[in-house]
Amino acid sequence: MTMHPVQSVRISLAERSYDISIGTDLLSATDQFADLPKASAALIVSNETVAPLYLSRLQATLSLSYRQVHTVVLPDGEAYKHLDTLNTIFDALLAHHCDRKTTLFALGGGVVGDMTGFAAACYMRGVPFVQVPTTLLAQVDSSVGGKTGINHVMGKNMIGAFYQPLKVICDLGTLQTLPVRELSAGLAEVIKYGPIADMEFFVWIEDNLDRLLSRDASALAHAVKRSCEIKAWVVGQDEREAGLRAILNFGHTFGHAIEAGLGYGQWLHGEAVGCGMVMAAELSHRLGGIDADFLARIRTLVARAGLPVTAPILDSTNNVARYMDLMRVDKKAEAGEIKFVVIQKPGVAAVQGAPDALVHAVIQAACA
Amino acid sequence: MTMHPVQSVRISLAERSYDISIGTDLLSATDQFADLPKASAALIVSNETVAPLYLSRLQATLSLSYRQVHTVVLPDGEAYKHLDTLNTIFDALLAHHCDRKTTLFALGGGVVGDMTGFAAACYMRGVPFVQVPTTLLAQVDSSVGGKTGINHVMGKNMIGAFYQPLKVICDLGTLQTLPVRELSAGLAEVIKYGPIADMEFFVWIEDNLDRLLSRDASALAHAVKRSCEIKAWVVGQDEREAGLRAILNFGHTFGHAIEAGLGYGQWLHGEAVGCGMVMAAELSHRLGGIDADFLARIRTLVARAGLPVTAPILDSTNNVARYMDLMRVDKKAEAGEIKFVVIQKPGVAAVQGAPDALVHAVIQAACA
Repeated sequence: MTMHPVQSVRISLAERSYDISIGTDLLSATDQFADLPKASAALIVSNETVAPLYLSRLQATLSLSYRQVHTVVLPDGEAYKHLDTLNTIFDALLAHHCDRKTTLFALGGGVVGDMTGFAAACYMRGVPFVQVPTTLLAQVDSSVGGKTGINHVMGKNMIGAFYQPLKVICDLGTLQTLPVRELSAGLAEVIKYGPIADMEFFVWIEDNLDRLLSRDASALAHAVKRSCEIKAWVVGQDEREAGLRAILNFGHTFGHAIEAGLGYGQWLHGEAVGCGMVMAAELSHRLGGIDADFLARIRTLVARAGLPVTAPILDSTNNVARYMDLMRVDKKAEAGEIKFVVIQKPGVAAVQGAPDALVHAVIQAACA
Repeated sequence: MTMHPVQSVRISLAERSYDISIGTDLLSATDQFADLPKASAALIVSNETVAPLYLSRLQATLSLSYRQVHTVVLPDGEAYKHLDTLNTIFDALLAHHCDRKTTLFALGGGVVGDMTGFAAACYMRGVPFVQVPTTLLAQVDSSVGGKTGINHVMGKNMIGAFYQPLKVICDLGTLQTLPVRELSAGLAEVIKYGPIADMEFFVWIEDNLDRLLSRDASALAHAVKRSCEIKAWVVGQDEREAGLRAILNFGHTFGHAIEAGLGYGQWLHGEAVGCGMVMAAELSHRLGGIDADFLARIRTLVARAGLPVTAPILDSTNNVARYMDLMRVDKKAEAGEIKFVVIQKPGVAAVQGAPDALVHAVIQAACA
């Protein structure tokens, strides 16, 4: 792979501001880790899939900065994103007598990032942590926003905290070993930013999807950088998700229902979001926000990215009711009313309710 | 009991500022709850001991403000302050489809308050909560500071969050049913504020201890109010416990070792702190901060309050080493060095290390 210059996105959040570095071979780039606060120990949290590939490399780099570099390897997958797995991180921190300055490093995808960030938020009521995302999804999504957390059997990401990392280091080299299904899942969150915020970026993705699918480093660098910039712009205006920020959940209301209904881990999060975006676009069309042409462009792009555009049947006797029940526990819901991210016109989105009849029709059409 | 006017302490924390109300019969005082943000549902968290006494009264008051008032009753005691019990609060929130506006009410002592606050901090990454402390310890200690959390088998309060309540409502009437042992435990945290911050208050406690022990409402009101004011003054200068705030842990380094060593729940937290204060005062004396007279006054006051002044043997073969090991996992420790809150002169405290030999001598003297 050709060496590219390291690019950087600044996330401005007053005293919690931080940088996202995007480049190749950053796991071995000692200067990337040199500006972190001094501490005697680091703990790298990774999973069984990523650890054999990249753990020793990061550990070697960190040993230049920390006297002790502990590791904990979690089972891989959304199905393990729960309290018991979280507790194994606490077990490791306490077994190694980690103190309040111990820095946690999340080496892996979104699940590792969310759990490590939440563990860092809670251990001794807050220790520093650094994100080292190794999937496209995590690089474009978990890098910005400070959302950390775990699932509950009754709902996804129901337990968590807003907690910002000290830094995010995106090594594009790690995307070369990403399974193709996970590359597609990551592209779902990249595509998302077009319809809700930036039509120029949407057109760029349409034009460059083949380069992204072939893992061209400069195309990936642009996709990661632009996605982080857009997300940072939105989050910068609404850190605690009081309003605008919720548009980032485009495709997620339907998507969460798919994930929960199938059981976490059956579909990847990005796959559910991809299909959910097609459903949310269909709803936007029926509400009059976008025309049939733009709806078709979204569906085509999602399909070209290798993502599902037909929704699964979640209950063979009462499918629509099952979707509705699952969507009612979504965090955006208020007093039982389901809220959707709807495209008002290409590049502009808003959060709103929708008549049940329309939502039912969207579900029926998407499952056909 | 005579009716007294409701007193109030303002905790100033910018947009997270709130009031502590102190008075009698506040559980039934609808005006106390009238200014909370509107929500369709409330969840009262209590425990098996407090619920039979006060749950229905609070529930009746809250039903005037909330369409639904759910309840969850936890097992009583520090031994249950762990992840599994916390999860029963999440189970209840999700089973009742509680949304982001659902307000949590902690009705009970410090354990209920810490767990409810932590659950509120984590549920959907943060929902509102109100403290309704029913023990003296919780009224003077948990009311201010925003510390929430749970224990881990390897350490007390190791997992938690800083999270502020919307309001704290201290009904002094609930102290009339408090077991005498718990009244004494609460007095430990009241006595604490004298040596570290306010010698005038220390003298007031010496003069009024008998009134406090006989549960005189106006004496209790003053003790709660003054304790909250002092704590607020300290916390206001150091919300995230970077420095000064740690002086509030006077007696807690030794105290935590006693609690952990005996197994949580054997001694009450306040009992361990009472004994820990005598040990910390002894250490302060050996370090030259206070004279033998003042050390004796502290010991006498702790004993008069009904608290232990002789420390337990934690390990019959290697007691001192056991204490040292347990203190090394204290959150104030850094890179293995134990930090103590030491009185520099009556009314002034600081956090510092101490020579091992001195600490060993203090442990040996206290266990004799």
